[in-house]
Amino acid sequence: MSEVLKVVGTHPVREALKSGKEIEKILVSRETSNSELSEIVKIAKAKGIPIQKVPKIKLDKASDINHQGILAYISPIKFVEIDDIIEVATNRNESPFVIILDSVTDTRNFGAICRTAECMGVHGIILPKNHSASINEGVIKSSAGAVLKLNISRINHLQDAIYHLQASEIKVISFTEKAESNLRDFTPEKGGVALILGSEELGINPKLISSSNHHLKIQMYGTTDSLNVGVAAGMAIYEIKNKIND
Amino acid sequence: MSEVLKVVGTHPVREALKSGKEIEKILVSRETSNSELSEIVKIAKAKGIPIQKVPKIKLDKASDINHQGILAYISPIKFVEIDDIIEVATNRNESPFVIILDSVTDTRNFGAICRTAECMGVHGIILPKNHSASINEGVIKSSAGAVLKLNISRINHLQDAIYHLQASEIKVISFTEKAESNLRDFTPEKGGVALILGSEELGINPKLISSSNHHLKIQMYGTTDSLNVGVAAGMAIYEIKNKIND
Repeated sequence: MSEVLKVVGTHPVREALKSGKEIEKILVSRETSNSELSEIVKIAKAKGIPIQKVPKIKLDKASDINHQGILAYISPIKFVEIDDIIEVATNRNESPFVIILDSVTDTRNFGAICRTAECMGVHGIILPKNHSASINEGVIKSSAGAVLKLNISRINHLQDAIYHLQASEIKVISFTEKAESNLRDFTPEKGGVALILGSEELGINPKLISSSNHHLKIQMYGTTDSLNVGVAAGMAIYEIKNKIND
Repeated sequence: MSEVLKVVGTHPVREALKSGKEIEKILVSRETSNSELSEIVKIAKAKGIPIQKVPKIKLDKASDINHQGILAYISPIKFVEIDDIIEVATNRNESPFVIILDSVTDTRNFGAICRTAECMGVHGIILPKNHSASINEGVIKSSAGAVLKLNISRINHLQDAIYHLQASEIKVISFTEKAESNLRDFTPEKGGVALILGSEELGINPKLISSSNHHLKIQMYGTTDSLNVGVAAGMAIYEIKNKIND
């Protein structure tokens, strides 16, 4: 299983930035200040990479070698474009089935959804660049490695992903407890579907809900408020995958 | 939300034993030895309550008051008989739908399954007295409190539960990756069904599998070995509940 790679020290981090590798985030020591460090931080910011200023001791703990006040986490996966995900489906001669995760930051839930998606033949996952779980050791573990096998696309605004998918004849489904239609009664369109799932705390951004083609919920029978998001995602992925196959 | 109650000291633990309250387990200090303590341990053992000998410091940490070398955890729920579970279904004019958990000791998975079961109108859960997660704060939290609303029966041998259910016209389903039939193609009998789920590590005890009426799996499409047990349970409960309603 791949591990999350750390790149340590000014020169290696600069090279990683040049190489175009997927950098998850960069940690910079609060106590260190010099022009080289400032320049690297400037380049990283311009690329939209998250920068965290941390106490030097955090870098000391994260690295055995001389870190010079900077450390970058390289993503263990290579992100793809949304069209690459659609192409995977086309190549398999299947209707595209895509998952969009809005603000699912909990490592366990994110990992469980990735595991389910891979097991059930979902073609790809779309994440926002911000407000998403980092793809780290915890996610790799809780996904049983599935996250490394999935086609994952990261974009700035999920709204753009919705327009992009809809322009490709893929219908977008918001999966939310407030919906009126039941998942069980839904028949996916032949052109393909994308399922948006939100976090347990925040649900799905209302703008994304209103630009969706369908709104679905799971019929409930008890008095507990809601299902765990990983479990609810499992039911939805199961139902839709089986309906696509029917 | 109820919390797990601690009963501390020789006299209170003796009273708890007399009262017939459900005691999860008793902790006894390794460093303390006297006839009163030995007598209480003897009574507890005769009732089949798990006893753990622990360093005195563990009791000191668990209790602010003088523990006299003994502490009992009282279960936050009152367990029921299997027939009580069947009666719940009958009273609701529904076919019984029961979950049997074989060796699901992981707190998070156990909690998630309880949450799903309560949300989806399952009538009750059957657990073995040993090899099951304790019903503690962790389970209450991960079940979102659902565990406190469920009818739960604890018995010595799950094999007896299977015979008991089958004698009541309830068909027993082993849910295992090794099954040949797909969950999606299954039609539950009108007399009711009980679904056995095992742990991710051990699966279901082969003896329970061989005395089941049906063996079902979820059709998989990816290369990851298996689904998370809480997610797989969710799919199965969802499918069977919907089929019962059809």
